[in-house]
Amino acid sequence: MQPLLALIGLFNNRFNATTHFPIKPDTLYQPNLYFLQLGGKRIRPALCLMGNELFNTINNDAYEVAAAIELFHNFTLIHDDIMDVAPLRRGMPTVPAKYGNNTAILSGDVMLVAAYEKINKIDTKYIHTILKIFNKTAQQVCEGQQLDMDFEKKKEVTLPDYLEMITLKTSVLLAASLQMGAVLGGASEANANLLYQFGINIGLAFQIQDDYLDAFGEPEKFGKKIGGDIIANKKTFLTIHALETANPQQKEKLEFLLTTTNDSQEKVEEVVQIFKECKVDEWANSLKQKYVAEAYKSLEAVAVLNNRKQALKDVAVYLLEREH
Amino acid sequence: MQPLLALIGLFNNRFNATTHFPIKPDTLYQPNLYFLQLGGKRIRPALCLMGNELFNTINNDAYEVAAAIELFHNFTLIHDDIMDVAPLRRGMPTVPAKYGNNTAILSGDVMLVAAYEKINKIDTKYIHTILKIFNKTAQQVCEGQQLDMDFEKKKEVTLPDYLEMITLKTSVLLAASLQMGAVLGGASEANANLLYQFGINIGLAFQIQDDYLDAFGEPEKFGKKIGGDIIANKKTFLTIHALETANPQQKEKLEFLLTTTNDSQEKVEEVVQIFKECKVDEWANSLKQKYVAEAYKSLEAVAVLNNRKQALKDVAVYLLEREH
Repeated sequence: MQPLLALIGLFNNRFNATTHFPIKPDTLYQPNLYFLQLGGKRIRPALCLMGNELFNTINNDAYEVAAAIELFHNFTLIHDDIMDVAPLRRGMPTVPAKYGNNTAILSGDVMLVAAYEKINKIDTKYIHTILKIFNKTAQQVCEGQQLDMDFEKKKEVTLPDYLEMITLKTSVLLAASLQMGAVLGGASEANANLLYQFGINIGLAFQIQDDYLDAFGEPEKFGKKIGGDIIANKKTFLTIHALETANPQQKEKLEFLLTTTNDSQEKVEEVVQIFKECKVDEWANSLKQKYVAEAYKSLEAVAVLNNRKQALKDVAVYLLEREH
Repeated sequence: MQPLLALIGLFNNRFNATTHFPIKPDTLYQPNLYFLQLGGKRIRPALCLMGNELFNTINNDAYEVAAAIELFHNFTLIHDDIMDVAPLRRGMPTVPAKYGNNTAILSGDVMLVAAYEKINKIDTKYIHTILKIFNKTAQQVCEGQQLDMDFEKKKEVTLPDYLEMITLKTSVLLAASLQMGAVLGGASEANANLLYQFGINIGLAFQIQDDYLDAFGEPEKFGKKIGGDIIANKKTFLTIHALETANPQQKEKLEFLLTTTNDSQEKVEEVVQIFKECKVDEWANSLKQKYVAEAYKSLEAVAVLNNRKQALKDVAVYLLEREH
């Protein structure tokens, strides 16, 4: 099994050398080429290759599905950036900011269609299974994004609600990437499902980490401004747990702070102070560990030689031990 | 071969009795259910069934692909209504007008995914071919919509440019509906391609008719206000030909009229007057007849008994002899 970075390299070599779109009309396709060349970590396609290599040498179908996954992921980012009115992504103008909302809708649509054409290239033997997983996942990612938008308008979001949203918006695609790779490697349904569970739990742990770093990360390592979620009044694992455990005074103050439009450092510090008083940091770490343990349990149960699993364990470490 | 209206009825019986979406989150799926129950002519899925029945008794795969086509068509309408800032469709609020642009983006996205899940239900034997046609068509429809938006900003649009845009935006889906039905009925590639050509030409003739009726239709029969395209300064077969054949004075006046924001009846009448002076009405009718003749030529060449083709000929009449 090759490590994550090697698989990312293998994927990028092929993906970046492939013509994914026609040239004309360039008003439709140029935005997609622009967005793809902004790069990205390519974690999801690499997970597809890794799921594949766990059971076999990496085959061509795995590369096609990995490309479909990456195109799908980019399609969701383009459309999300419209909904979020996001000016920047990866430090550069988003597609809607650069080309307008209408073109961003259409370019995203045609990117999704291109993803399905990649799937159409795989062996007939697997196409129904892969399409079924891919469609279900795509549907769930849309559901997750809708729930995320719904939560912005909701006063109270419970932890189970938030877990469901994160599972749909983030975890299922990581999980399905591993699962589809495994299916194409000839894995049994049981083994492919265990990898899926591994992905779901890693995804949840990753999101807890992400929420945690926004409040407790070290700015110079985190790479972005601390407290971005707090300034945006975003619901996160931290705010949800704080509101559930705060005393009435803390709760009142937190609710007040998280409804003001105020991007001051004082607001961030006051919110983080309440988080600390409510021991949200300790709670978040232990919840993260719970999901990591669940993930490892699923990985242990996959019926392949233990030493083949090292790269997957390293992925968990890579995603979760990061401080940025 | 059953006539168009019978096939529309058969399709609607199944389509309307099918659960296309989960219930939750209803913020995502309710807009799609709302939009689907607004109805529509269901011409495209009926053409798929008709293409199928030309070669065989209608099979289950044809119903699945017909449903995929109808979901795809509705997806494009939902996204088009965002881009066009359209308040009404079929006399009722559009999805973006009723639920907001963000939900309309996502509900449209998930409708497209649902279309692909219908395709996933067909016989493995046909899935690569159908996916290939479907993906190519979906891509072309996006290209057509982008070109349509591009043309709004362009001063000069030539007839070949406009024909390409209409082919992509309107004709290819009608054509592919027939073709996919034929493929699923066991038609040879040659016969399926002839039906595709029939659809392309009928689509062009239909659009000429549509543009013609906007300027020359009788209001009480046309069902919508005459001159809607003129008021919106839309480029149509009529404006393009008029600008190509007008004398300098007519051209100057027409260009002036078609850049003003003026929804008066006088503007409509003045533009129609120039159309008449340039004999645009005669030209449009003869161009329409040219495409109808091309369509019939392709249909004649399809290697099935002539009396089986009657329903398809009737479709052309239904679409083209209408005055509304």
